[in-house]
Amino acid sequence: MKTLTLDLSTQNPVDKSYPIFIGQGLLEQKQANLLTDYITNKQVMVVSDTTVAPLYLDKVMSLLEDYQVQTCILPDGEQYKILSEVEKIWQQLLSSAFNRGVTLIALGGGVIGDNTGFGAACYQRGVNFIQIPTTLLSQVDSSVGGKTGVNHTLGKNMIGAFWQPQCVLIDLDTLDTLDDRQFSAGLAEVIKYGLLGNLIFLEFLEANIKAIMARDKVLLSEIIYQSCQDKANIVAQDELESGCRALLNFGHTFGHAIENSLGYGQYLHGEAVAIGMMMAADFSARLGLISVQAVQRVEKILQKANLPTKINTKIEKLDFINAMKVDKKAKDGVVPLILLAQLGEAIIEDKYDINLLEQVIEDYLN
Amino acid sequence: MKTLTLDLSTQNPVDKSYPIFIGQGLLEQKQANLLTDYITNKQVMVVSDTTVAPLYLDKVMSLLEDYQVQTCILPDGEQYKILSEVEKIWQQLLSSAFNRGVTLIALGGGVIGDNTGFGAACYQRGVNFIQIPTTLLSQVDSSVGGKTGVNHTLGKNMIGAFWQPQCVLIDLDTLDTLDDRQFSAGLAEVIKYGLLGNLIFLEFLEANIKAIMARDKVLLSEIIYQSCQDKANIVAQDELESGCRALLNFGHTFGHAIENSLGYGQYLHGEAVAIGMMMAADFSARLGLISVQAVQRVEKILQKANLPTKINTKIEKLDFINAMKVDKKAKDGVVPLILLAQLGEAIIEDKYDINLLEQVIEDYLN
Repeated sequence: MKTLTLDLSTQNPVDKSYPIFIGQGLLEQKQANLLTDYITNKQVMVVSDTTVAPLYLDKVMSLLEDYQVQTCILPDGEQYKILSEVEKIWQQLLSSAFNRGVTLIALGGGVIGDNTGFGAACYQRGVNFIQIPTTLLSQVDSSVGGKTGVNHTLGKNMIGAFWQPQCVLIDLDTLDTLDDRQFSAGLAEVIKYGLLGNLIFLEFLEANIKAIMARDKVLLSEIIYQSCQDKANIVAQDELESGCRALLNFGHTFGHAIENSLGYGQYLHGEAVAIGMMMAADFSARLGLISVQAVQRVEKILQKANLPTKINTKIEKLDFINAMKVDKKAKDGVVPLILLAQLGEAIIEDKYDINLLEQVIEDYLN
Repeated sequence: MKTLTLDLSTQNPVDKSYPIFIGQGLLEQKQANLLTDYITNKQVMVVSDTTVAPLYLDKVMSLLEDYQVQTCILPDGEQYKILSEVEKIWQQLLSSAFNRGVTLIALGGGVIGDNTGFGAACYQRGVNFIQIPTTLLSQVDSSVGGKTGVNHTLGKNMIGAFWQPQCVLIDLDTLDTLDDRQFSAGLAEVIKYGLLGNLIFLEFLEANIKAIMARDKVLLSEIIYQSCQDKANIVAQDELESGCRALLNFGHTFGHAIENSLGYGQYLHGEAVAIGMMMAADFSARLGLISVQAVQRVEKILQKANLPTKINTKIEKLDFINAMKVDKKAKDGVVPLILLAQLGEAIIEDKYDINLLEQVIEDYLN
């Protein structure tokens, strides 16, 4: 027998760092270079959805007059974060004979960002893409960090890739057209950063929740910046989620189980995460990690952000538990949970009392 | 406006080096550790096809008695290197509640390797996989280097990922059951290495083609080793095909156009590549790069390996030219071609006389 080794160790690691621009008027003509500096080739495809395209597509197109631009408009909603929608992107890229030099631009919320990012990751084994997130949720969470992917009927985000964008362009003005329910859903992920690792931020949110709900632009800029910074810090330490990045999943194991049990689109992702964070906080308290008062504080801030804190639709307990098991963090049948050691400090825990967990689930199920 | 940067530059590059084992009896019990040393978790899925599974699946399964193993048997043939087959892998992984720790094992030829590798690349954003190639073609080419992916009706290998296996296990004994046509198709890729970068190897092949065709095991071991080494050397310099890796595509731009025009499955991939190498050599001669005698040498070695050197089915010239344009290397409408500067030295050329190219195409079309 002979053995030879394919040595990739001397391969220079490509620096995948990228900027996140946050501000007002970033889609105006005078700021066009923020976008065009990150497009390397003439071929561009803007992917958007039926809600966002009528609002912002013209604006983006006018920044791209010197390019060969295709648009691909997908339907709106979490139920369309599926492989068949990504296939539409591929079909159109191939029909346009777009090659490896193409840049995809995701103009929309988290679903468009995920579909487009995954489309970019796999088209011709990987092409560039740019995120222009237009919802609060995608601005503070999904557009940053390079997680892309689609849902499967058997589990959320089960098919995907780590694929980093060239840049992220967050124009605060796009929040003007966001409806209240979507805005609150985005706040769930903002509150998450406070709860999982930043007590100062949590207290800032508590103190300013009223003005935030009134969409004060200065405050919005602050909380988006802080959220992106907290996320970027964690991702920089653990891009591929072999360790601390899992903390960003606070509330998500329960949240995904809610979405998965009810079918995507019933709750908004942020709403499911809000309930999930309540359940995780409550379970943390029952395990003696945090006080009941701390749980009440979590409930209060979520309620003030107009977020649900209990499931108001019927789910069978067994369905919920089975849905929880389909978690990417699961190992040998055990799903590690992100719990709170205190407000502002999440931990990863894979040893816990299953009976106690089932009680929590029961209490939150309708 | 505020700008922050997601810094990934300090991320330690993960060493993705892996061994390629080549020899006889590698699937025997006493060599089980060659496989099991590269499985990190109890969960394993063996993916194979309806031709290979009856021959070697039991053997592989007996090496995995201590594991929780699922098998996924796909249909055999290039026409099944498609997304819907990869979806079957994902469906079964999810139905089995297999998590990120799962290892996929590709047991079969290039189609199984590509489907399985791409399935592994995207399942839960990436899980481990191992290649056990059972055809000459997959042993000398597709199992090494981490290119995975599927065909699209509009182009070959258009959807995929760079995803490296944990190890490659080449058991020469699996060639005993390979039919002659498949064996010859594999030789096309072996001859390719000689033509594109290794004159010594080319002359060795010319001198020993008769014994190779008789499947002399010592010779097979030599030529597989040399092919893998040549490929590994190039991939180590350019994993993601930003430069010299494109040389490995010698014969493939024409070959893909043949496969794409005729529909996958009509010619075997290696057969299409053989014709493609003839066309590339012929075009090189017409451009004055190599002599007519050199082209005849290419033709001779291909014929001795029982490979086609002309297209024997009707293809319209325009269809062929359009199919050529759908090439991942294309840039601004121009498809760079891999040509021969001399036997044993390929070059990448994007400036050439289109009319001359069309003449070559005409001469090879039926």
